Amino acid sequence: MPTPLRPEPIEIAIIGGGIVGLLRRGIQVTVYEQAHGFREIGAGIAFTANAIQCMEQLDPAIVTALRSSGSVATSASNAGVKEAHDYLRWIDGYNQLDPNDPAYQRMLYQIDAGYRGFEGCRRVQFLEALVKVVPPEAIWCRRCLQWIEERGLDEKIGLGFLDGTRVEILFGEGSPVSYPHYTHEVAYRTLIPMEAAIAALGEYKARNQHNHVGPRAHLIHYPVANNTLINATAFVMDSGGWLDDKQMVAPASRGELEAAFADWSPCVRNVIRLFPEGLEKWACFDLWEYPAPYYSRGKICLTGDAAHASTPHHGAGAGMGIEDALCLSSLMVEVVEIIRKQPTLKGTVLETAFETFGAFRRTRTQWLVNSSRTVRDFYHQIEWGEPSKWVKAETCFEELKARFHKIWYFDDEAMKAEAVGLYREKMGVD
Amino acid sequence: MPTPLRPEPIEIAIIGGGIVGLLRRGIQVTVYEQAHGFREIGAGIAFTANAIQCMEQLDPAIVTALRSSGSVATSASNAGVKEAHDYLRWIDGYNQLDPNDPAYQRMLYQIDAGYRGFEGCRRVQFLEALVKVVPPEAIWCRRCLQWIEERGLDEKIGLGFLDGTRVEILFGEGSPVSYPHYTHEVAYRTLIPMEAAIAALGEYKARNQHNHVGPRAHLIHYPVANNTLINATAFVMDSGGWLDDKQMVAPASRGELEAAFADWSPCVRNVIRLFPEGLEKWACFDLWEYPAPYYSRGKICLTGDAAHASTPHHGAGAGMGIEDALCLSSLMVEVVEIIRKQPTLKGTVLETAFETFGAFRRTRTQWLVNSSRTVRDFYHQIEWGEPSKWVKAETCFEELKARFHKIWYFDDEAMKAEAVGLYREKMGVD
Repeated sequence: MPTPLRPEPIEIAIIGGGIVGLLRRGIQVTVYEQAHGFREIGAGIAFTANAIQCMEQLDPAIVTALRSSGSVATSASNAGVKEAHDYLRWIDGYNQLDPNDPAYQRMLYQIDAGYRGFEGCRRVQFLEALVKVVPPEAIWCRRCLQWIEERGLDEKIGLGFLDGTRVEILFGEGSPVSYPHYTHEVAYRTLIPMEAAIAALGEYKARNQHNHVGPRAHLIHYPVANNTLINATAFVMDSGGWLDDKQMVAPASRGELEAAFADWSPCVRNVIRLFPEGLEKWACFDLWEYPAPYYSRGKICLTGDAAHASTPHHGAGAGMGIEDALCLSSLMVEVVEIIRKQPTLKGTVLETAFETFGAFRRTRTQWLVNSSRTVRDFYHQIEWGEPSKWVKAETCFEELKARFHKIWYFDDEAMKAEAVGLYREKMGVD
Repeated sequence: MPTPLRPEPIEIAIIGGGIVGLLRRGIQVTVYEQAHGFREIGAGIAFTANAIQCMEQLDPAIVTALRSSGSVATSASNAGVKEAHDYLRWIDGYNQLDPNDPAYQRMLYQIDAGYRGFEGCRRVQFLEALVKVVPPEAIWCRRCLQWIEERGLDEKIGLGFLDGTRVEILFGEGSPVSYPHYTHEVAYRTLIPMEAAIAALGEYKARNQHNHVGPRAHLIHYPVANNTLINATAFVMDSGGWLDDKQMVAPASRGELEAAFADWSPCVRNVIRLFPEGLEKWACFDLWEYPAPYYSRGKICLTGDAAHASTPHHGAGAGMGIEDALCLSSLMVEVVEIIRKQPTLKGTVLETAFETFGAFRRTRTQWLVNSSRTVRDFYHQIEWGEPSKWVKAETCFEELKARFHKIWYFDDEAMKAEAVGLYREKMGVD
C-alpha cells in the first residue's frame, strides 16, 4: 500500500486578536493584530457558564487563565456557601420613594444562573493571562490588514498588511454590512474598590451583580478581581449621532454622567459619584441593522464580533464568539482528517467547512444581536418611571428569562455533533 | 363516626358565554350571556394541539363538538398522508417580482406544528355544537351583569343584571385595566369557497395555511368546513383611533381593503378581490397596555379574555382560555374535596383557589398578550418592502419559532400538578 502523501499543514491567519481570536486552538494559526499589543481598554467582562464550558473544551488552559485573573462568580457574597448559585437581579434604580415604602428599591426579578453561572473578571487581567497561553511566534502585532488576494481553489490566499486603512473583506468597503453601526447608547465604565462600593450600595448589593433599571438608562455592576473591586457600567441612551465610527471612545466628564442620572434613586447616584472626574465614554456599535447574509466566502471566514458584533446586554457577546471557536475547531479536526486522506481536496474541504460553520452558527448569533437590543429596551422602558405602568413594564421579565435561558442552556455537544454531521454530509464522508 | 355534614353545592356563575365560558365543566355552573343567543360573528377559529389536549381533559365532548363542526388540520392538502403534520408558513406577500425571480413569492419560513398541530373551523359551527353539550337550564341569555355584591366570607356573592351598562367588577369603572384598548389594527374576514381560493392562490397555498406578510399589513388563510372553504383574514394597521369601544365592528367596503393592498403582490390582490363588496371590519382590542395586576378578588375571578384579551396573531387567544379552564377545574376538584371534609371553610377555600389560579396563570397569559403584539410587528415590518433590509427582516423567524414553541410545547399535566400542589400548600393539606 502506498504511503499517503504528507499534506502541507493548513495555515490559518486570524485577523484581529480579540479575546475570541486568541482562542483558536488545535491548528497552526497566526494572529495579526493592528494594535501595538494586547492592552484592553475595557474594564470588566463576564462569561456565562456555557461559554466557560466551551473554553474548557477548546483548551483547559483558557479556563485556567480566566480563573487566575481574579475571576469571581458574580454572586460573590454567597461564595462561602457550597455550590452557591449566581443570580442575575434587576432592581428599581429610578423611583425616589420613601425607604419605608414597600416599593422602595424593589427587587423586580431574579434569575438563577446556576453554580458559577456568571463569572466576571477584569478584561486586562484575563487578556494578559490568555496571551501567555499562545506561543509568542504565533502573534504579530502592528499588522493592519490591507488587502486579500484570492487565488486558485487549492492555493493559499494572499494577505497584505499596512497601517491605517480598513479593508472590508467580505462585503466590500461600501456595504453597510461591513461596519458596525452606532446603537445610540454610550457606556461609562469604571472599577470601584469594594469598600467604597459597600458604602454606596450596602454590602449585599455591592457583593452581588445588580442591574438598576430606569427610563432610558441603566447601571449594572458585579464584583471582579477576587472581590476587591466592583466593575460598574452605566449605559445611557443618546439621541444624537456619533462623530467618528473609527474612534469608539470619547472624553467625557462625571458631570455629564451625573446629569443623566440626576433624577434617579439616591442609591444609583451614590455609585455614579464614585466614577472618576475625568472619564471616557464608549459608544456601543453593533451589526443589528445590517446583519451579514453569510459568514464566509471562499477561504475567508468571519467569526466572533466581525460576524455578529452585538451590544453587551446579554453578557454573551464574547461567549458567542467562544461557541463559534469551538464549532470551527470541531470542523477543523474533520478538515485535517479529510485532507490527510485526500490531500488534493484541500480548497473545497476548507471552503465547505467555513460554509457549514456559517450556515450553522448564523441563526443563533444573529438572534443574540437582536435579543441584546430587545433586552436593552426592556431595561430602558420609560414605564419604569410611571407607577401606573409598572405592572405593564414588569411583564417583560417572563420574556427576559426565556432569552437568558436560550443562551445559557446551550448544548455544545449537540452543536459539535450536528455541525460535524452536516459537514460530513456535504463532503460525502461517513 | 358522625356522618360529615353534606355541604351546599358550590355554585359558579359565569359572566359572558364565549367559547371559554362554555367550557367550564365538572361543577354546577350557570352561564349569563348578555346577547340574545350564541351567534358568533367571527368567521374562522383555529386551535393549537395543546389547546385541544386541554379540551380533551376538560370533557371529550368538547373535542367531539369541534371535530363535528367541520374542523380540519390547517395543512389539509396533506390530509391523505398518514399522520401528516401541519405547518405554519410565512410567505412574501408584498414584493411584485418577476415570476422567474428566485425571490418571487418566496417562502420565508415554516414551522412544523406536528400532527393536527393547528385545527381550524368556522366559529359559528363550533359554538353551535358546543352549546348542545351544555344543559340548556345552565344558560341564561339576555343577562347583562349590572352589579356584584360581596357579602360575608362564607356567603354567596349577589349578582344584579340589567341591560345596557357595563360594570367593571375587579378594577372599577374608571380603571384602564377594566377595558381592552384599541390596538390600531383592523381585521377584514371572509370565507371563500375552496374552488375560488384555488383559482386565486394555486392549489397548494389554498389548501394549506399561509401567512402573506408585508409592510403594515398581512393576510392569513387556512381551510375550514371540511376543506370546502378557506377562512381568510386581512389585518391592516390603522394610524387613527376607533370611535366607539363598545362597538367592535364597523361597516367597510372592499374598495378600502383593495386600497390598503393596492401595491401588494398579485397573488394577495387576487384573494382580496374575492372578499364581498359590502364588508365589515373588526377592530382589534387587547389588554396589552394596562395588564391586570391580579386575576381575582374575593370570590370573583377573571379568566379567558376578561383576564388577558389578546390580539389573535398567535392563534392562541381562545386556547389560553381553555388552559385557564383546565387549571381552574383542577383546582375546583380540590375545592370540592376540601369542603366535603371541612364545610365551614367554604369562603377561604374558594378565594384561595382563585388566588392560586391567578398567581399561576398570570405570567403565561400576559406573556401571550405581549407576544401576539410582537409577532404582529414582525409580520408588518416595513423592511419586507425593502430588498436591502430583507436579511434583517428575516432574523425575526428564529424568535418567532421560539414564541410559537412556547405556546405549543405546554405541559398541561405539569400545570395541573403544580397549581394543585401550590393550592394544597396554601391550604395546608397534603
